[in-house]
Amino acid sequence: MTVNLSNFRKDYTKNSLLESEVPKEPFQLFDNWFQQEKSFYQEKDDEEINAMSISTIGEDGCPETRVVLLKEYSENGFIFYTNYYSLKGRGIQNTPKVCISFYWKNMERQIIIKGVTSKVQKNKSDEYFHNRPIGNKIGSWASRQSMIISSKEYLLKQYNKWKNFFNKQIIRRPFYWGGYIVKPYKMEFWQGQPNRLHDRLVYFLEKEKKWILYRLSP
Amino acid sequence: MTVNLSNFRKDYTKNSLLESEVPKEPFQLFDNWFQQEKSFYQEKDDEEINAMSISTIGEDGCPETRVVLLKEYSENGFIFYTNYYSLKGRGIQNTPKVCISFYWKNMERQIIIKGVTSKVQKNKSDEYFHNRPIGNKIGSWASRQSMIISSKEYLLKQYNKWKNFFNKQIIRRPFYWGGYIVKPYKMEFWQGQPNRLHDRLVYFLEKEKKWILYRLSP
Repeated sequence: MTVNLSNFRKDYTKNSLLESEVPKEPFQLFDNWFQQEKSFYQEKDDEEINAMSISTIGEDGCPETRVVLLKEYSENGFIFYTNYYSLKGRGIQNTPKVCISFYWKNMERQIIIKGVTSKVQKNKSDEYFHNRPIGNKIGSWASRQSMIISSKEYLLKQYNKWKNFFNKQIIRRPFYWGGYIVKPYKMEFWQGQPNRLHDRLVYFLEKEKKWILYRLSP
Repeated sequence: MTVNLSNFRKDYTKNSLLESEVPKEPFQLFDNWFQQEKSFYQEKDDEEINAMSISTIGEDGCPETRVVLLKEYSENGFIFYTNYYSLKGRGIQNTPKVCISFYWKNMERQIIIKGVTSKVQKNKSDEYFHNRPIGNKIGSWASRQSMIISSKEYLLKQYNKWKNFFNKQIIRRPFYWGGYIVKPYKMEFWQGQPNRLHDRLVYFLEKEKKWILYRLSP
């Protein structure tokens, strides 16, 4: 089996990205792009525009990437929630520098963010956890994330066990589950262009709150 | 500015992934999923189902992720093309272990591959390069990928310079541009499930051509 995809490509022509048009702060540009993406999909709520890749470094020294959902952003950083004992949690524990990235095909855009990760305050994790759907809450108790398990039946049995355990009680947040905030020090905005001459503008944090802007060759 | 996305989620219900249904070789399962994704989008050719994230490790020790297009896959590995002097090329030079990942929203699937990267044979890169659209070929000469440049005008000027230089001559492949093949040693297949109880099956290369299969807790 050899599958040739050499003609799977498209030319990017929808937008451009110029220094003269961007705000001084990368967060503002992030927000502009996020809102534009959101407007495009406003009638379909399952588009998961907040899906982002997060890459950490595995125990074997190899990067590891998976999708998580962004749950909040502000000038302070980008917040997501997970099991702290998952592969990504353990990766962050060893190397708190991570890369989060968004690929918004429709607008022919990527945002690539490098930053340093820390846990959010416990009360913030509590607050978020308590607003999750009940099935997701039980799922957090049922799954020892990224551990090897014998079968799907085992997992479903655990789920039912915890469901019965909590019955109608309030389901509290497991101590091993909570939020991380990624504080960026580099944010690249990529806008696809014809002939592979893409626009790439980078904001780099020179010192606290002082971002410099430069352009990379595509 | 604080943007709360806590309710941006969906439940995954479309498929499941069971040990009893998967082939012994991960490449076969990759191909099945790829072909299913392709069928779904068959009427829209700009869906870029071959878009994948590739993560390398940057000079600052932080992972770096960006999207590239997969150009060939087989039991030997996964091939893409780039500028060897780009940030990703330099990352690979330092640490050939990379992660490539696919997120296929429609089917609620992810494939996460860890592998070791090497350059493909020069004649293979030549062959692929010669089939690229002419604008892309010139673009490869015009761009010193990931280097800082002064402006977009500078880039377009370089492009026109090379365009004139080649005029109607054959455009040869720049020595710094070519293919990489990622030979996987771990391939995880992720199928979204209700209540966050996702199916995660991992193929791990125990020894040459001998893959073991196990399930991870979600």
